Amino acid sequence: MEGIIEIISNSGARIVGLQAPEGLKRSLPKMAKEITEKTGAEVILSGDPCYGACDIDLDLGKEVDLVIHLGHTTLGDGPDKFVYFEARMPGDLKDAVERSIPLLRGKKIGVATTVQHVHKLDDALEVLQDHGLQGVVGPACGRARYPGQVLGCSFGTIKGLEVGEYLFLGTGRFHPLGIALSTGKRVIASDPVTGEVAEIDPDPMLRRRWGAIARAMDSKKIAVIVSKKPGQRRWETARKIVDLGKTKGRDMVLVYVDNIEPDRLINLGVDAAVSTACPRIALDDAAKYNIPVLTPQEFEIVIGYRRAEDYEPDEYP
Amino acid sequence: MEGIIEIISNSGARIVGLQAPEGLKRSLPKMAKEITEKTGAEVILSGDPCYGACDIDLDLGKEVDLVIHLGHTTLGDGPDKFVYFEARMPGDLKDAVERSIPLLRGKKIGVATTVQHVHKLDDALEVLQDHGLQGVVGPACGRARYPGQVLGCSFGTIKGLEVGEYLFLGTGRFHPLGIALSTGKRVIASDPVTGEVAEIDPDPMLRRRWGAIARAMDSKKIAVIVSKKPGQRRWETARKIVDLGKTKGRDMVLVYVDNIEPDRLINLGVDAAVSTACPRIALDDAAKYNIPVLTPQEFEIVIGYRRAEDYEPDEYP
Repeated sequence: MEGIIEIISNSGARIVGLQAPEGLKRSLPKMAKEITEKTGAEVILSGDPCYGACDIDLDLGKEVDLVIHLGHTTLGDGPDKFVYFEARMPGDLKDAVERSIPLLRGKKIGVATTVQHVHKLDDALEVLQDHGLQGVVGPACGRARYPGQVLGCSFGTIKGLEVGEYLFLGTGRFHPLGIALSTGKRVIASDPVTGEVAEIDPDPMLRRRWGAIARAMDSKKIAVIVSKKPGQRRWETARKIVDLGKTKGRDMVLVYVDNIEPDRLINLGVDAAVSTACPRIALDDAAKYNIPVLTPQEFEIVIGYRRAEDYEPDEYP
Repeated sequence: MEGIIEIISNSGARIVGLQAPEGLKRSLPKMAKEITEKTGAEVILSGDPCYGACDIDLDLGKEVDLVIHLGHTTLGDGPDKFVYFEARMPGDLKDAVERSIPLLRGKKIGVATTVQHVHKLDDALEVLQDHGLQGVVGPACGRARYPGQVLGCSFGTIKGLEVGEYLFLGTGRFHPLGIALSTGKRVIASDPVTGEVAEIDPDPMLRRRWGAIARAMDSKKIAVIVSKKPGQRRWETARKIVDLGKTKGRDMVLVYVDNIEPDRLINLGVDAAVSTACPRIALDDAAKYNIPVLTPQEFEIVIGYRRAEDYEPDEYP
């Protein structure tokens, strides 16, 4: 908090915006009060949902002198007005690695984590070494700013490692599933927060994805969704999908949208949608939609432009 | 549709945006296809919800040469790139007026409607005359472009009329409720689409509003919501509310948001909210929120800045 106060004071900003992901939002009103008391600046909170570093509130940026964006690493293309404060977990990764040991089979393990824990990766490698195992961490790449870091849309860090299996240290199933789908290799996920550890089985997710692909086969009217979020706006990918679909006789329509919600798609009366926004939307939220929502790669399979055996998860370059 | 094609052709636009309220959205994919076939322009649909003329998609405007906005009248401040096509109902108002006759008591009736039917108001007055009644229509005023027109946030047209009661011709309960609350007079609503006709009873709504006001009395942390929608962005009103609340010892925080949804407020951990956005949000959707969401006027009552007997609905100038 001192760092934030200092930056605001030094900047001379009179109106300050605060943005944070949902999990940190509850702390914002108190933070706003403290900022105003200590710097005299008016504070405006971003009330819209925030799902990642790709999801910065540019509208808020227009109304204020400075935006403090909490909880994410910059993607490298943040506007000048935006200052990022990464959220780092205070706990360590050692116990999480210890718990994973009985599940590991090989001697050489690819290790990956998210930005919250990335500063503790060395500890993780040490614990592996104590057990006679070699942890391998890939270099920063694409949207990942740190070695060993993965994002929900970017798994480049773990690709090309000469390892037989992976250890993912972090929360949730999306990242380790992405590693499994990207590499086709065994992945152990160990959660430093909940203490859970398990081998990831990508089959249920893949079966759901093939179900969606099958249901989209006969679709005629297809919405191709482009996100308004600065880090998710893939016009080029979307226009390529529109063109591909048209050559196969489908009615394709471009749709520009901020937050993708089921009723947005229902009201358009389309049979299927291809989302070029955050890859998690098609994969995580499939059950929310009453029409198949595909990734670009999945749609390529639907129209016969990509072979089924070349299925791969959607990733950002 | 010919008018739209002509405008696009004459404008030379190569990329065209289409925006419509939810009820008209289903027709957009077909319209998009026809536009592309006849003009060669690429079409991009606005996928976000659209609740009024105040809710134009400026982000879409940045990506295209021209935006066709269907279903609303301009508020007079639409950007150059936006062309409005009002949606007008083909049916007439005569039957709706006939059905209202048995419920009318006076001889002089204030008549109001929404933009979809405003071109048929003369017919309505004729039917009243046939029954020996005088229909009175107020002049265009504020956000209302036509005589007799009311909007959900603007009832100026019907104020100051020397009538004993009002006849509202249109769909839904929000507009006639607004007339009743604004004027304190009897209102008959007759719906030309459903054929329903009834006297409006504002008491249940008022009781709910007083319930919300009562629940907000002890609130400490209060979010003051400003909408990002161009026609709903009331910074001045919001800042006045923040200042008023602070002088009464409340913790006030400004929140800037696109679509106001219950989870946005829950995650902020506030006890109550004051919405300076569309007045319908606080009134229509109250049941969706687990905290009281007030209009600015209602919050003034909470903090003792306005007397209870001066309760009035929130309106835009």
